[in-house]
Amino acid sequence: MSTIGPYSFEQYLKMVEKFHGRVAPGMVTGGFMIDLARRNLPEGTFFDAISETTSCLPDTIQLLTPCTIGNGWLRVIDTGRFALTLFEKYGGEGVRVSLDVEKLEGWPELKAWFLKLTPKSEQDTKRLLEELQEAGSGIYRVEHVRVGPEYLGKQKKKNIRLCARCREPFRSDTEDICPFCTGERAYLSSVDEKGPAGVR
Amino acid sequence: MSTIGPYSFEQYLKMVEKFHGRVAPGMVTGGFMIDLARRNLPEGTFFDAISETTSCLPDTIQLLTPCTIGNGWLRVIDTGRFALTLFEKYGGEGVRVSLDVEKLEGWPELKAWFLKLTPKSEQDTKRLLEELQEAGSGIYRVEHVRVGPEYLGKQKKKNIRLCARCREPFRSDTEDICPFCTGERAYLSSVDEKGPAGVR
Repeated sequence: MSTIGPYSFEQYLKMVEKFHGRVAPGMVTGGFMIDLARRNLPEGTFFDAISETTSCLPDTIQLLTPCTIGNGWLRVIDTGRFALTLFEKYGGEGVRVSLDVEKLEGWPELKAWFLKLTPKSEQDTKRLLEELQEAGSGIYRVEHVRVGPEYLGKQKKKNIRLCARCREPFRSDTEDICPFCTGERAYLSSVDEKGPAGVR
Repeated sequence: MSTIGPYSFEQYLKMVEKFHGRVAPGMVTGGFMIDLARRNLPEGTFFDAISETTSCLPDTIQLLTPCTIGNGWLRVIDTGRFALTLFEKYGGEGVRVSLDVEKLEGWPELKAWFLKLTPKSEQDTKRLLEELQEAGSGIYRVEHVRVGPEYLGKQKKKNIRLCARCREPFRSDTEDICPFCTGERAYLSSVDEKGPAGVR
């Protein structure tokens, strides 16, 4: 296969480098996976996407489909498995595509990369990309699935409330204190608004 | 202000439409926020990003910085607040930018949108975008912050194990069963690999 979606393989690699920063093997794999998923969905399906990993696949989805994290059509549900699901937005019928470890026997570099059998420093990336291209869509598993009802349709956005501690608006229908101020998601160790004068 | 990063305002709106699907007000706001954050970071800082919301801001970050979800340099820590933080990758010193509700008095359409005071159907989007452009960088709050040590540096990727139930490889150093099979992240209500014959 020498195309990824509407792009030539080379065009796709350039897009990957620009968006993702480097031509990661997982981004190439992801390109084939999206292609397979789309070809197994009825033409014209209005779909949402789920990535089962934070690595690479969210970026292939964002590059090759209309689904992004910020528009809410892509969600990461981290099962640690290298798989993605595209599914009809309202009914949930869809296609899950994963890399099938049982189909990797003829592809030593690919198998070593996928199962982390050799350290990254010993990885022959050129050969790996060749194997990925030669293997084409032959190393994946396609499952027809239905996504649970709790993931379907447009999520109703919560209302805006002022946090009783930081006084910032936050999305909630019920809470008085935002998840930062409760400590649940307090990711900062210090805050100094008066710090080195900045451009305002 | 008539530029967003290296782009004219109009160029940026086109990029937003292509990536995010529509010119959402939060994407425009986010453009100014990223600009402010970058101008308050020392030139050449090698930074990671945190978005405090899943709405819009992850997409502005992915469009205007090298940080994406799939390359691991962008993380969403959902506090429900409309804010983002860019911070030096290893030390954690950074800049948090939020929309400052106290600076919205002169901007009725903006205030109504941000606090959800009027239903979306009554929103004057054209006027809202004009107000956003006129207000420029004057409606934000910039804080000098330090990100907690647990969010710094490259995350070590876990090893690959075969799940004892689904037999798929998944990332874990300790578990025998993947979070899908334990039920913790079982987002599918049915799986039928034999379903309608697909293109393989």
